[in-house]
Amino acid sequence: MEKNILLTIEYDGTYFSGWQRQPEVVTAQGKLEEGLSRLLGQPIKVDGTSRTDAGVHALGQRASFKGDFGIPTENMKRALNDVLASGETYRGKPAPLRIIDVREVPMDFHARFNCKGKKYRYIIDTAPEVDIFCRNYSYHLGKQLDVKAMEDALKHINGTHDFEAFQASGGTPRETTVRTIFGTAIRQEGHRVIFEVAGDGFLYNMVRIMVGTLIQVGLGKIPSDQVEKIIASCDRQQAGFTAPAEGLYLVEIYYDDEEIQNAF
Amino acid sequence: MEKNILLTIEYDGTYFSGWQRQPEVVTAQGKLEEGLSRLLGQPIKVDGTSRTDAGVHALGQRASFKGDFGIPTENMKRALNDVLASGETYRGKPAPLRIIDVREVPMDFHARFNCKGKKYRYIIDTAPEVDIFCRNYSYHLGKQLDVKAMEDALKHINGTHDFEAFQASGGTPRETTVRTIFGTAIRQEGHRVIFEVAGDGFLYNMVRIMVGTLIQVGLGKIPSDQVEKIIASCDRQQAGFTAPAEGLYLVEIYYDDEEIQNAF
Repeated sequence: MEKNILLTIEYDGTYFSGWQRQPEVVTAQGKLEEGLSRLLGQPIKVDGTSRTDAGVHALGQRASFKGDFGIPTENMKRALNDVLASGETYRGKPAPLRIIDVREVPMDFHARFNCKGKKYRYIIDTAPEVDIFCRNYSYHLGKQLDVKAMEDALKHINGTHDFEAFQASGGTPRETTVRTIFGTAIRQEGHRVIFEVAGDGFLYNMVRIMVGTLIQVGLGKIPSDQVEKIIASCDRQQAGFTAPAEGLYLVEIYYDDEEIQNAF
Repeated sequence: MEKNILLTIEYDGTYFSGWQRQPEVVTAQGKLEEGLSRLLGQPIKVDGTSRTDAGVHALGQRASFKGDFGIPTENMKRALNDVLASGETYRGKPAPLRIIDVREVPMDFHARFNCKGKKYRYIIDTAPEVDIFCRNYSYHLGKQLDVKAMEDALKHINGTHDFEAFQASGGTPRETTVRTIFGTAIRQEGHRVIFEVAGDGFLYNMVRIMVGTLIQVGLGKIPSDQVEKIIASCDRQQAGFTAPAEGLYLVEIYYDDEEIQNAF
């Protein structure tokens, strides 16, 4: 009998040229489909929720696929992780991509079309000297940030706005650049500044441009109130730089309103 | 005027085929010499203290080199780190190798020949599920360890012994396999078990075989008292497996007895 399977996946973006399958390049979707096809003995293509860029990490990416499989769903997580970790590629180390959860969903469920929102995290390292062991897992700014000023700027980001100013060129064309941000948070943990944002959708590089703009606020180069004008301008040139990929994590995908209400 | 310079270096072993310079392969010594030669405008070869293997990390590797340089010693750390991080290799990220300290030493000082001891650390991850973001920075054992039993075994390791049983084949031939272990320590931090060992010298793969043996003790496969017999046997076959490279860190190099007395 045909089943519809939803996977929750984490990966270390350092090892992938992004999520999306591409010929000749190692991608997270490509590795996952390779493992699934090997495990299930038939060619599998998955629908992923979010196209993360090269270097961007995922703690809760989702992907769904359909088929008639011999293997019970409850055994699939362990079996798939075993297949993903096997082979010579990682010299006995765990794979940089891991399945966290496998569940059956109704046949009309689609990992992307049913998505109601997402949460991202961005980690900025403000320590003057870089911790080289974190070089792939946070953005080493190396300067102090005024976190209070950055927090003040968040009130201009929360809510429904046209976020064209925070959109990079080169992404998939979208019908509208209006998005709703459900919630934001920023905190300092030692020398790290951690920003989180949840919304119903994000334009191309939107979180990274948002972070670049917030960093300019934190460095005192942009007053926090100016963020309102930057958004209203709908002009990418007014916003800050695109913060680098290594600090960004796709944390969670939301499929229902209750999850969204508990996002923060 | 000719100077003798001693560097303290940290590196993420994931990115290097070990310390030692080799043709056609990226090594820590190779990268360092490339950066130094570029900075100083003359070909520089360094004498490193410890030949770490591929995947092994360093927090305090040392290397010395001599020459007559225009650049003041106190400016060398920043300038060298800038050169090491430049270029397209790391796409704007910090380099995986960083200079921690630069100092002038007497002309007869040699980073390796003057070395009186070293400290290593080994990190074992006992959590059932792997943290993929730590896959290069600890050994994922995924099983609980009896840390008390491992600690009991340490008394057989401390002191002066013939450690031939803990020597892998393939290393540089040594005059003697007798080494003195100044101190050892083992502790549990959450799901991590952290082992440290300091000694006057280590045979090829000695720390990793020591750890493999201690893990067998922690898993209840070898009684802690048997470690004495294993060492006395001088037989590699009696000892445990070679624990993988990713958990190992070269922590410190000692050049005087006072440093050694404060090692633990």
